[in-house]
Amino acid sequence: MSSTVVAPRTASTEVDLHPLLADRWSPRAFDRTPLEDSDVTALLEAARWAPSANNYQPWRFLVGRQGTEGADSTYKGIYDALAEFNQLWASAAPVLVAAVVEVEHEDGSAREIAPYELGLAVSQLTVEAAARGLHVHQMGGFDAAQISAEFGIPPQYRTVVVLAVGRLGDPEALPAWAAERETAPRERKPLADIAFAGRWGTPHAA
Amino acid sequence: MSSTVVAPRTASTEVDLHPLLADRWSPRAFDRTPLEDSDVTALLEAARWAPSANNYQPWRFLVGRQGTEGADSTYKGIYDALAEFNQLWASAAPVLVAAVVEVEHEDGSAREIAPYELGLAVSQLTVEAAARGLHVHQMGGFDAAQISAEFGIPPQYRTVVVLAVGRLGDPEALPAWAAERETAPRERKPLADIAFAGRWGTPHAA
Repeated sequence: MSSTVVAPRTASTEVDLHPLLADRWSPRAFDRTPLEDSDVTALLEAARWAPSANNYQPWRFLVGRQGTEGADSTYKGIYDALAEFNQLWASAAPVLVAAVVEVEHEDGSAREIAPYELGLAVSQLTVEAAARGLHVHQMGGFDAAQISAEFGIPPQYRTVVVLAVGRLGDPEALPAWAAERETAPRERKPLADIAFAGRWGTPHAA
Repeated sequence: MSSTVVAPRTASTEVDLHPLLADRWSPRAFDRTPLEDSDVTALLEAARWAPSANNYQPWRFLVGRQGTEGADSTYKGIYDALAEFNQLWASAAPVLVAAVVEVEHEDGSAREIAPYELGLAVSQLTVEAAARGLHVHQMGGFDAAQISAEFGIPPQYRTVVVLAVGRLGDPEALPAWAAERETAPRERKPLADIAFAGRWGTPHAA
């Protein structure tokens, strides 16, 4: 019997976080129900309004969608570039987004802050997704050159991640290795290993 | 007479975003009231629980605080490295955080995804700040080498941004150029310029 109930995966924290952050995680079991247009627009608007140095906004998005009639050409083009271990589960997600960034100015000089800023934008997309009952799984396993060729992306741009977006689905439909990860405890380094004061490596004590 | 009321700066969007995103902006007028320890811990926890490829978590934070008795040594060390145009307003912020990332593995190979992931983490910190009535202003204008030397940051790490965190303050205390920016309309590229489908440059139509 199918079930879409998964174990609580709320982050373990010293103080309570806002639920949009505490309950965020990256599922592999997606439901095939298509997303509303307004949801997709909201995801992109959330990314659009991220902060950016000098308001440069180096982020770009290729948006592929899958409806009851099947996937559009953008979805297919992104999906085909995914590594096989991602294709195994991502095919159920109703939306795939290639998150692209301008890493060079037109004069060829590097824009070093740009990938960082793409992270700000995708995180805002992820928060808005959570506010709409959606989940996002970011993937690094894909062929960026294939995506560039498929969509005619100019050379000063680079695809950094591909996002699968949708509602939680049935983990029983996943391969066993992936189903296990849907309920495994979430873990992070201790705060003392990442937050310092006084000297590098000395834990910040709040 | 002082006033901490500023004009509404809600993002202009095609569909409504969650208020934690829609009302986010980067003030320069901060209130000197110190932050509670629990607020600072929550900001760091929010960053800590960001997604990371293979759960590598390349982000680190140096946390400087300013109380009623003045600034701690971490605050002073970060502040001294700020560009003068940032020092002019940032001195009122009760917290300064240097956001640092591991850009190379120990074997010297580049970890290209790392700055992107630091962006994910800082964005989560910013959302948690908003949930607690706080604002964050990210700065690129600072001397990263000076921060590395001051705190003994290993060479495989790099400070990407410095964050000022606090409650909104009185814009009348700012220099005129900065006060004007507190109420200027917020602007972004149109969605059609950043979200594509089918082919690079072809607007995605939701």
